[in-house]
Order: sequence, then C-alpha cells, then structure tokens
Amino acid sequence: MTTVEEAEKLILAQLRDYGTESLPFEQTVGRVLAEAIKADRDLPPFNRVTMDGIAVNYQSIVSGILSFNIKATQAAGDEPVAISHPEECIEIMTGAVLPVSVDTVIRYEDVEITSGLALVKVQDIKKGQNLHLQGVDKKEGDVLASIGQMVTPAIIGLAASVGKTHLLVKKLPRVVIISSGDELVEVDQTPAPYQIRKSNGYTIKAVLQKQGLQSDMIHIPDDPEITRQQIQHCLQNYDVLLLSGGISMGKFDYIPQALEDSAVKKIFHKVAQRPGKPFWFGVHANGNLVFAFPGNPVATFMCLYKYFLNWLRATLGTTEQSPVYAVLAKDFQFQPPLQYFLQVKLQSNPHGQLMAWPIEGNGSGDFANLADTDAFLELPLERTDFKAGEVFRVVKF
Amino acid sequence: MTTVEEAEKLILAQLRDYGTESLPFEQTVGRVLAEAIKADRDLPPFNRVTMDGIAVNYQSIVSGILSFNIKATQAAGDEPVAISHPEECIEIMTGAVLPVSVDTVIRYEDVEITSGLALVKVQDIKKGQNLHLQGVDKKEGDVLASIGQMVTPAIIGLAASVGKTHLLVKKLPRVVIISSGDELVEVDQTPAPYQIRKSNGYTIKAVLQKQGLQSDMIHIPDDPEITRQQIQHCLQNYDVLLLSGGISMGKFDYIPQALEDSAVKKIFHKVAQRPGKPFWFGVHANGNLVFAFPGNPVATFMCLYKYFLNWLRATLGTTEQSPVYAVLAKDFQFQPPLQYFLQVKLQSNPHGQLMAWPIEGNGSGDFANLADTDAFLELPLERTDFKAGEVFRVVKF
Repeated sequence: MTTVEEAEKLILAQLRDYGTESLPFEQTVGRVLAEAIKADRDLPPFNRVTMDGIAVNYQSIVSGILSFNIKATQAAGDEPVAISHPEECIEIMTGAVLPVSVDTVIRYEDVEITSGLALVKVQDIKKGQNLHLQGVDKKEGDVLASIGQMVTPAIIGLAASVGKTHLLVKKLPRVVIISSGDELVEVDQTPAPYQIRKSNGYTIKAVLQKQGLQSDMIHIPDDPEITRQQIQHCLQNYDVLLLSGGISMGKFDYIPQALEDSAVKKIFHKVAQRPGKPFWFGVHANGNLVFAFPGNPVATFMCLYKYFLNWLRATLGTTEQSPVYAVLAKDFQFQPPLQYFLQVKLQSNPHGQLMAWPIEGNGSGDFANLADTDAFLELPLERTDFKAGEVFRVVKF
Repeated sequence: MTTVEEAEKLILAQLRDYGTESLPFEQTVGRVLAEAIKADRDLPPFNRVTMDGIAVNYQSIVSGILSFNIKATQAAGDEPVAISHPEECIEIMTGAVLPVSVDTVIRYEDVEITSGLALVKVQDIKKGQNLHLQGVDKKEGDVLASIGQMVTPAIIGLAASVGKTHLLVKKLPRVVIISSGDELVEVDQTPAPYQIRKSNGYTIKAVLQKQGLQSDMIHIPDDPEITRQQIQHCLQNYDVLLLSGGISMGKFDYIPQALEDSAVKKIFHKVAQRPGKPFWFGVHANGNLVFAFPGNPVATFMCLYKYFLNWLRATLGTTEQSPVYAVLAKDFQFQPPLQYFLQVKLQSNPHGQLMAWPIEGNGSGDFANLADTDAFLELPLERTDFKAGEVFRVVKF
C-alpha cells in the first residue's frame, strides 16, 4: 500500500502553473504574490518629524539660545518652510518634513509658547532628536515583499504606501467539489431513517473559502450515464476535481468507471493511513487532477488539509511552509499498521511548547469531534506506542 | 502612565452586546455561535455499514456456514431488506443501513462471488465487524457545538448534517475606520515630496476583513468644522470608531477637540508601551467606543491586534482565548521604561517549541518589517535584558 510519504511525493510531482492575474490590491489578502513589491521612494520618503513641537538648529542650543521666535507653523503635508536666523524656530507637527534649515525637534512638553515665542524648558537635547530619517527603513527600489509571499494585511498597507493599486498574484485553480450517492439528501430536507444529509461538500467549500478559493459544488446521483456525463463535464471545466465518496468497490459506485472512461489515470489508490485509507488520486490526459477522498467526513477533512492544501501551496509557490511540531500530552496507543492522524486540541503552555491533547471521541470516524479539536497529530506508521512528551508533526486546521 | 495591563482592563470593562442574527449556515465561518448546534438524531443515525461486501448473521459463521445465497443487494440510501434463512446474505454497500436480520459485514476482499453465491474466504471474522453503530458518536439532542464557539469549516459540516440551514450568531459591531490629515494622498496619486499615501486604513480594513468584519473607511481633512461634523456623524452611525493618527498634541489635530465637543469621555491617553504610546481610548455617552491609535503604522497595527481584536473577541463571548507563549530565540535588550512589543518571526522547532526570532528592522517604527514577521513578543515593562530561552506571551498577526 502507498505510504503517506509516498502519496505526498506523488501528489507534489503534479504541480501546475495556472498563471497570474492582476487584482485591485485590497482584494488580494491570502493570495500569493507573483511580483515583488518595491519601495517607490525611500521609506520614510523624507526626514520625518515624529513629535509635535518646534524645529530648531542644534547649533543654536549649543550656543546657549533658549528662546526662539516662531517663524512659521508647518503641518504634516505642508511644503517645508525655512528659518533665516539662529534665534528662529518653526512650530512643526508630527509627520511634517524637516526643513533643511533646521535639524532637531523639541516636543511641546519641553517648551513654553507665549505670543510667538518658544522658550525651551529642558537641558537634555540631542542633535537630530524626534526625527525618523529619510531612507532608514528602506531605500527606493528595495523589495518590501517578495514573489511567493502570501499577502497579509501588513502587505496590503505596504502596497498602499507605495501606490500599488493593483497586485499581480498567482491565479487559483478552478475547483469543483463532487459528492455522489442517492443516500444523500439536501440540508433543508428531513432524511428517511436510512438517508443522511449532504455535509462533506459544505465542509470542503468552507475550508477552501478560508483559503480564498471559490469553488463550485455538484452532486451526482447513482446513475452510470449521468455520472459519466458529469465527470466529463467537470474534467473540461475545472482544473481540480475534489470528490468525496463514491470511489469504493461498491456496486453502485459508478465513479471509478466514469473516471477510467474519461482518460483519468490512477496515480495511487489506498494509502496506509487512518482515517482516509481508500484515498484515490489520479491525473487526466489534459493535466487536470482528481483527488477522490473517502466519504467518511473525517477522512475527507484530513485528506483535504494534508494533501490538497499542501499541493495548492506548492503549486502556487508559497514561500511559507515550515512544518509545525507539537508535544503529545498523554500516552496513546494505536495498533493497526497505518499512519494514524490523531485528532488533538493544541495548547500553548507557559514553557513555549505546543501541547497536543488527544481528543479521540469515538475514533477516527467521529466527525462531531472535529468541532472540539484543531489539528491532526501525525503518528508514525512503524510504531504502536506513543508516550507523553514525544514530539510529532501536526496538520493544523 | 497607564500600563498595558491597566489599558487592557479598562478596555475589557467596556464590553457590549450587539445582539444576534440568523444567517444562512454557509455564510457563518468565523462568526461566533449564539445558539448551540444539537444532534437532531443519533450520530450515526443508524447502524451504518463501513465496507462494501456482504451482510450475514454471525451465528451462521459460528455454525460453520461459509457459502451464502445473495438474497438482495442494498445500496446506501436504500430501505433495508432482510434475510429469512441462515444461509442467506445481503450484498451491501458502504453507507447502507444494516438490516435487523443481520449483524456482521464481510468485505468484498474476503469473499468470492459467483452467480448469486458468496463464498467466505477468511477465518477471522468478528461479530459486528465493519459497522459504525447508531449513536456511538452522539445521541439525539447532544450538543455538537456550543454557544461562544467560533464557526469553523468542521462546524459548517456539522450544521449541514443536522439540517441547520440557518445559524444564530453574534452580531458584529458597525465599525468605521477614520484617517485624518492633509499630508495623506490617495493610493493612486503621486505624493509631493512632503506627502505620503494613505495606508493605515487599508491595513486595518484588511485585518478586520480577515476576522469577517466589514468596515467603512473615511478620511477627515484638517478642518475643525468638517472634523466635528464627521466625528458626530460617525458616533451616530457606528458602534466603534477606529482612528489612526490625529490625536497628538499637534496644532492641526482637530480630533481631540471634536471628540470632546461630541461628549466622548477619555478613559485613558498614553500607554507605557512601544510602539503605540500615544494610544487614546474613550467612550461616548451613548456607549459607542473610540479607539484612537497613533498614526505610526506599526503602532496602529499592534494596538489593533492587542486591544481592539481582544475586545472584539470578549464582546462576542468567544470561548477560545488561551494565550500563546513563545521562546525568545536570541538575547535582546530594550532600555526605555516601556513594555516593548518586539516584532518576531515564529518558528516551530522539532522539540515542539515555538521559537520567536527577533526581526527588528529599524526599530518599532519600521512598517516594512511587518511583512517579514508574524507576531509581537510582549517583553515585560520592568526589565531591560531579555535572554535567549526565556518565554513570553505573543500577539500573533
């Protein structure tokens, strides 16, 4: 059987390039940059005043001058004015440009102003104080955010500050979520005792949405001809098909046949893992990918995070991919020769460790349990006893 | 000066109740539940078959029967059929209801089927195998997700499975983001050498959007009358005013006066922290809140996460609020008697520790640096030397 590691490798061998698109910068949070954002001028762009007060020439202070005539008042956004005499100062506001004729700012708290005269009340004045000097943060042309970085709110602010009204980002694949089976009824329907409501598709859609990926959802009934038509339609109109259920050996699972009829080549079927053992992965002649997850909601959920989102990040060339590790908080045993994805609740402790508390519920098939957990702990295939204090990788969700 | 701890306490003393609203369940990711989601029937709702194969009576196996006539085929979603003889079986599919006449499922891999006859090829069969029994996960009426939980994709799936087409969630405050100052020009404009582009408002809006909170943005020019009008308009139409800049002692900062004229009471001004020392917080007679952040982009960013989002979670009654700790990865010094929020890059190490790497850039005012970091490490007020290996709380962003 394919191991988790092999499955990952086979999937990551199928990276795609969906190109790029230019979007209004405010709409790009969570997207992956396809261009670097550069400083259009120095940051700060000028010697910027950081306190409200008066701007003087430090030499005047050194020579003992403590009383200054206020020559003018300069607000942030005003063109700089200049003094023409050592006993003059400019009343100046935070954010203003420091005029070339002065070099030091004394804040309001340290001066007394009466009828056009500013009296300095303190001794300890440093040359160049209360200034944020031009170019100390970044020089014109410096890279502020690189290709492959995910756009964060901070990057949105940076883009605004350098006048990037549009950002070039990686295009996302067109994804369709496919559920199947006549046992499924709509959410607003009351299922017969032997039926259940559709739910996996909504879960998948919500996960993708959190990643900024819009997707379509379709449901295929248990009918071989409709199944074939729908699968072919999806292969023509979407880059990725995410199936939930319908790929077991069941007599009414028409999907494997439809995929075969549609030139989708199986890359692997079944992975040595729980949940999600029946996971099927294939590739169409035109390069489109088919992730067929088992119908068990927990298996679908795990495979989506572990395999599809990982593939998505790699395909988009996201730079941030460092693994996350957590400490198993109590002993745990798992016998079957499968890599177990244990549902855990993560908690940061005062030692700076990420503790993983197993919350098993009723085993790997208990979907209700996912509401109380926030990660899967990846327990290695070759072992059965896991001790509190051991560290393993986690898949956060 | 107000300490960070005091500021937090004063802000958290101003929790509000904005009521609840019922939304289509798919639109509630990230929102806070105002009702519990309960199981509308047992989970699973019936004894559910978990493997494709044949369903038999275990007693037949015990009595040595290995060959079974296939009485009928039952798919998932079919009404259950029954056997009437110990040598009969039902060919049955994953997801189907286990009929009452049988109690054990043998998977296809372990039988050989020829012309209506199923021959069992294995010895090791356990009574009740390959079944997910009714109600083992949850009983009808059990709580699947509680009031105060944030809606996750898993909860979306649970809501679908129990037929909750709408969910009652906490209403969000109406928030307006206010920038001010004539030095600011639009993103698509080329600033004069003494001007800069608006950026803080976009950053704030993007942060709020990531939290599912839509907000409006306005800009107030340096004009006392317009400032007064706009502030009053905002106090009438929004629950929370988030100001960035405009509250210093500057001569052209008309906002403090406008707030005073509009019956906004100052709760505190200035916090012993860097960045963000000039942070101002007040409350209007009608209960509306004014968070006035300093104009420095890093200060605005930090205060937004540390104070506003914390207040928002508390106001909405979110249950998930456990603090996050990280290990300082290298020595750091900070002299001023202020609580320093150090920009760090977090990295999980193979010991399960969250390491915080200081990435200082050019100090607390370097906004470009926020693109390369993902948290602030909160260094305590009373100390100046911080050693690698010490653990502190972090504000993740």
